[in-house]
Amino acid sequence: MITPHGTVELPTFMPVGTAGSVKAMLPEEVARTGAQVILGNTYHLLLRPGHTLVRDLGGLHKFAGWSGTILTDSGGFQVLSLKELRKISEEGVAFQSPYDGRKHLLSPELSIEIQEALGTDIAMAFDECPPADAERDYVARSMARTTRWLQRCQDARRQPERTSMFGIVQGGVYDDLRREHAEQVLAFDLDGYAIGGVAIGESKEDMLRVVDTSTDLLPVDRPRYLMGVGLPYDLVAAVAAGVDMFDCVVPTRNARTGRIFTSKGLVVVKNAQNRDDGRPLDEDCDCPTCQNFSRAYIRHLWTSGEILVHRLTTMHNLWFFGRLMARIRAAIDAGTMQDLLRETKAGPYGVDGGR
Amino acid sequence: MITPHGTVELPTFMPVGTAGSVKAMLPEEVARTGAQVILGNTYHLLLRPGHTLVRDLGGLHKFAGWSGTILTDSGGFQVLSLKELRKISEEGVAFQSPYDGRKHLLSPELSIEIQEALGTDIAMAFDECPPADAERDYVARSMARTTRWLQRCQDARRQPERTSMFGIVQGGVYDDLRREHAEQVLAFDLDGYAIGGVAIGESKEDMLRVVDTSTDLLPVDRPRYLMGVGLPYDLVAAVAAGVDMFDCVVPTRNARTGRIFTSKGLVVVKNAQNRDDGRPLDEDCDCPTCQNFSRAYIRHLWTSGEILVHRLTTMHNLWFFGRLMARIRAAIDAGTMQDLLRETKAGPYGVDGGR
Repeated sequence: MITPHGTVELPTFMPVGTAGSVKAMLPEEVARTGAQVILGNTYHLLLRPGHTLVRDLGGLHKFAGWSGTILTDSGGFQVLSLKELRKISEEGVAFQSPYDGRKHLLSPELSIEIQEALGTDIAMAFDECPPADAERDYVARSMARTTRWLQRCQDARRQPERTSMFGIVQGGVYDDLRREHAEQVLAFDLDGYAIGGVAIGESKEDMLRVVDTSTDLLPVDRPRYLMGVGLPYDLVAAVAAGVDMFDCVVPTRNARTGRIFTSKGLVVVKNAQNRDDGRPLDEDCDCPTCQNFSRAYIRHLWTSGEILVHRLTTMHNLWFFGRLMARIRAAIDAGTMQDLLRETKAGPYGVDGGR
Repeated sequence: MITPHGTVELPTFMPVGTAGSVKAMLPEEVARTGAQVILGNTYHLLLRPGHTLVRDLGGLHKFAGWSGTILTDSGGFQVLSLKELRKISEEGVAFQSPYDGRKHLLSPELSIEIQEALGTDIAMAFDECPPADAERDYVARSMARTTRWLQRCQDARRQPERTSMFGIVQGGVYDDLRREHAEQVLAFDLDGYAIGGVAIGESKEDMLRVVDTSTDLLPVDRPRYLMGVGLPYDLVAAVAAGVDMFDCVVPTRNARTGRIFTSKGLVVVKNAQNRDDGRPLDEDCDCPTCQNFSRAYIRHLWTSGEILVHRLTTMHNLWFFGRLMARIRAAIDAGTMQDLLRETKAGPYGVDGGR
C-alpha cells in the first residue's frame, strides 16, 4: 500500500497512538518494532489539543514526530462509547466533553475536516457502530444512515489527493445486512474498505463468520481493514480470510497491565515466580527488552512503580506483534497460511489466547 | 577517576537511579546525556528487591543494564528521613519498612555488606547526617559516632580491591567541627571523601562556606564529592571551590514535575503559553527532545497524562546538566572557571536559580 508517507507492507498491524503518542514509546521505537502505520484518534485529538492547533503546527506527523503513515479513525466509535453523554441524530453525534463539559456535535463533515486538518494519510468515514446486542431492525436503520453519512463524508473531502478515505461496512452479525451494506459502500469508489462492528462483544464464532463473509464481498485490489482486532489468533485467521490491516490496543494496553506476549504464552510481570528469574521475558525474542533485562528486573520495576517498566513491556509486546505480522507475510509468500493457522490454533494463542 | 567500570571524567554529575532505574530512562539514554556514573540507593534496594537477590542475579550493573560506574549511598540518609519510624543507637539505625512494616537494623556492617552485594564501584561509609537545625552539641556527638561507624565500615569491607569506599565529613555549619571531623576521617586512608550534611535546609551562604572550608581540608589527589547538590549555580561554585563529584535529583525530579532547565531559564511545561508554541523547549539545545518535539506537543502530552512526557523532559534536563558539566570541564582546562562562575551568577541560574 502506498501512502504519502511511504510504502506499507501488507498485512500490517497498526499500534494505537490515541492522543498522538503510542503510549510510553518514542516514534523511532515504534518503527523499530516493524510498525509502518500508527492510528490516531480523532475524538481525542479534537478535544486535546484540538485539530486546528495540530494543523497550524504542521500536522500530526510533525507534531508527534512520526514520519510513517498515519490512519485516523472517524471519532464515531469513541463518541458513541460516551453512553449517557451523547445523542445520535441524522445530523451526527452530539456529546459533552468529559474533560470540560463543553458541547460538541461530531458530524460526517466535521470528522473529515478534523482528519484532513490533522494531515492523516488515511481518513476513516464517519459511521455508527451499533452495540453487539442491537436488534436487527436497529442495525438495518443505523446502517442506512451510515451510508448517508458516507455520502456526506465523500462530499466534505477537500484534499482527496492527499488524504485517502476508507469506507466502513457495518451490518452487525447479520450476513444479509453485511452483504447489503457492502453493496452500498462499494458503490462509492474508495481507497480502501473496513469491516466495522466486530470485536465489540459478539461471539468469536460470529466474528470469524462476519470476517469471512465480509472479505468475500470486498474487492481484492483495495486494502481491507478489520477494525479493533485483535488477538494473535484473530490476526492469523483474518489474514487467512483476506484481511490486510489491523489496529488494536491489545499489545500496548496489555503491556501497561503487565501482561506479556511470549512464544510460550502469556507472562504476567507481577507474578511472584518472576521475582528471582534471571531469564528474559521471552527467551526466543530479540527485542531490546529481552536482550537487556531479566524478568526479575522487570518485576522489580513493576513492584516499585517505575515508569521504565511500561517502556520495556510495551516495546516487547509491540515487537511480538511486529514479528507475528512478519511471519504472516512470510507465510503468504510461501503459500503456507493454512499451516500457520493450524499451528497458531494449537499453540499458546489458540482461539481466545492472549486476552 | 578510574573504577572497575571505566574512566570517569571529573568533575562529574551523577543522576540518581534510586531503585536501580534513573526514572523513565534506559541506561543507554542516561549515558547519552554524558553521565558516566549513576547513584543507587542502598535503602531502596535493600527493601526492594533485596540486595541478596541482586547479588544472585549478577549484581546491580547487570540487573539494571548499566555498564558504567555505580556509586551507592550508605542508606543512612534515607533511613534517618523516616522520622517516626526509626531510632538511632550506637549499633545503627533501627527502622520499619514503610512497605510491609518489617523491622530492620541498618548498621555500618550491613550497609557495607549490601553495597558489596550490589557490586557497586564506590560504596559510601555509613554516617549520620544531623538535621540542619541540630544543636552544636548534637552535631559534635553525632560526628564522633560517625567516625566510630567509619571504623566499623572499614573493618566490614570484604572486597576493597573491587569496591572503593569514600568517607563522609560531617560537622554541620560549624567550621571548627568540620575541621575536626575532616581530620578524623582523613586518618583513614580512603579512595575518596565526601562532604555530607549540606543542602538539607541550611542557608545558601552557610552551604557555600562549608563547601569552601571542606574542600580546603580534603586532599587534592582523591575525588571530593559534594552529596545531594545541586542547582546549576551550586555546581559551578562548588567546582570552583574544588569539588569533583555531585549527585542530585534536581534534573530528574524537576523533569517529572514539568520544570525544564533551558539556556533562557526555567520553562514550566503545563503553562498555557506553551499551548501553541512550535519551538523546542530550548532553542539552543541539541538533545533528542529538542531536536524532535515542540513545546506544544510536550504540553499536550503533559495535559493528556501521557507517559512519554516524562521521558522527553528527563532526557532534556539530564542533557542540560551533562552539557553544563562539559562546559565546567572545558573551563577548568582553559583556566576560566572564575569567568564561568561570574557568568552563571549573572545568568538565569544565579544563586538560587532552578529551584
